[in-house]
Amino acid sequence: MTDSGLPQPPAAPNATPTTDPDAHPLDDALQLAPLGGHRFAGRTTAPWANMVGPFGGITAAVLLRAAMDHPDRLGEPLALTVNYAGPVAAGAFEIEARPARTNRGTQHWTLSLDQGGQPASTATAVFAVRRDTWTARELTLPEVPPAAEVEASVPRIGIEWAKRYEMRFIEGGWPDLDIGEELPHSRTMMWIRDLPERPLDAPALAAICDAFYPRVFRRRQRFTPIGTVSITTLIHADAAALARQGARPVLACARGVHFGQGFFEQRAEVWGDDGTLLASSIQMVYFRD
Amino acid sequence: MTDSGLPQPPAAPNATPTTDPDAHPLDDALQLAPLGGHRFAGRTTAPWANMVGPFGGITAAVLLRAAMDHPDRLGEPLALTVNYAGPVAAGAFEIEARPARTNRGTQHWTLSLDQGGQPASTATAVFAVRRDTWTARELTLPEVPPAAEVEASVPRIGIEWAKRYEMRFIEGGWPDLDIGEELPHSRTMMWIRDLPERPLDAPALAAICDAFYPRVFRRRQRFTPIGTVSITTLIHADAAALARQGARPVLACARGVHFGQGFFEQRAEVWGDDGTLLASSIQMVYFRD
Repeated sequence: MTDSGLPQPPAAPNATPTTDPDAHPLDDALQLAPLGGHRFAGRTTAPWANMVGPFGGITAAVLLRAAMDHPDRLGEPLALTVNYAGPVAAGAFEIEARPARTNRGTQHWTLSLDQGGQPASTATAVFAVRRDTWTARELTLPEVPPAAEVEASVPRIGIEWAKRYEMRFIEGGWPDLDIGEELPHSRTMMWIRDLPERPLDAPALAAICDAFYPRVFRRRQRFTPIGTVSITTLIHADAAALARQGARPVLACARGVHFGQGFFEQRAEVWGDDGTLLASSIQMVYFRD
Repeated sequence: MTDSGLPQPPAAPNATPTTDPDAHPLDDALQLAPLGGHRFAGRTTAPWANMVGPFGGITAAVLLRAAMDHPDRLGEPLALTVNYAGPVAAGAFEIEARPARTNRGTQHWTLSLDQGGQPASTATAVFAVRRDTWTARELTLPEVPPAAEVEASVPRIGIEWAKRYEMRFIEGGWPDLDIGEELPHSRTMMWIRDLPERPLDAPALAAICDAFYPRVFRRRQRFTPIGTVSITTLIHADAAALARQGARPVLACARGVHFGQGFFEQRAEVWGDDGTLLASSIQMVYFRD
């Protein structure tokens, strides 16, 4: 999986990024050290732990960061698909971020996050040069109270990564998994932002697109083993739109679509507080009965 | 982009599949000849031509077919992302379909469709072994008349691939591109099936997920240059569900989500006539003003 046309130095013992205790936990988790060629060294960090391995959103964010950090990068992220192929063990990983094709206005990336010589995640991304055109909204922001009028939630399950977010649930807060009675839907609407506050950027947005507890937990109000197998995020916000949003909460909405045969589809939208659709996302999630 | 651990015979002059005049046009377009390693030879076919190059849905279908044809394939398709990286020229292409990681119940694929030594499309796919579990629907089939009560449409623009489908529009039929007046939405609902009739399978379903004219044409009622840059399709139907549907029309629904800065998001669902969600899909499409 390395490009034989480029120098491939062996990963030096000190290639793994070290933690700056003053760094924001998101920026710390996204630290990458270039290894030459199309490879970068990274590592998991404790604040983003999920029940097993790291939060899927942080894996998506660090893959996107690798493409953004690549010296040949063109434009801004437009689409990201991450397939969770296997568990990510605590510790070091390598990312390969390869510009498979660069056009005048778009760039196509093939990515993988590798541990022990095999991919733990595969991914693709599309970047593009944005330009002003005709604009229209067809899906619009749901009617919700402003973030300041919604109480911030306290995570009710011991998931480390959830402490990295301020979540203000308008609908579908942390479910009680002891009820076991099926609900008619699994919608969640929340105002969310990074903790500590941090201006929004594309990796942070990609992570937020996955910052929902699994829809099957709400729908069934009970715990079952789950794991996202594939998430695709389409990014509508350019750097200027992200800068306008800054560190204020974004509205994140998710719902289940179809559950069956061990997998369910979950869709999500993330809105700016001015009503702009920043990103939308779909994922397929494995579940056990 | 080849696996040096496996024999890589040079493509023989006769490696490109030849056309069986009795074959269904879809099956003919999906013919692949194994080249050894993870590579397959294919070629474009005239019945699936789009305005420029082949219909994106047929490219998605042939990439999926390559993974399905691979001798190491496990299970059935669950998720497919295809990124249209560059134009596909009429004639021969090669597909690389590499099982990046195979687990007990899931398999992760990295794919590309190459011409002239560079990728015209990159893709990933996830396959899975399906099993019976708890099932629930959260999105349900819209209320529509049965296919037999809806008139079959005659394509109003000279797009060759559209002749490969019987389309019965309930809402949002072929737009009049000379009007130029903006509409409030871009929804389409249609009953659709392959022409000639053909039992549904996963590649046919993946193609149907892209068988909508671009939403920007309807919304603006005018023509602009467009091109899908990335499509993701989540497949909920296993082989048994596809067999139950057979060759009867499926209900295909699409709508625009957000248009701006040269790209728009289009979402689609494809339903069986028994109300089962067979697949859902999102794509990001480039457009010019």
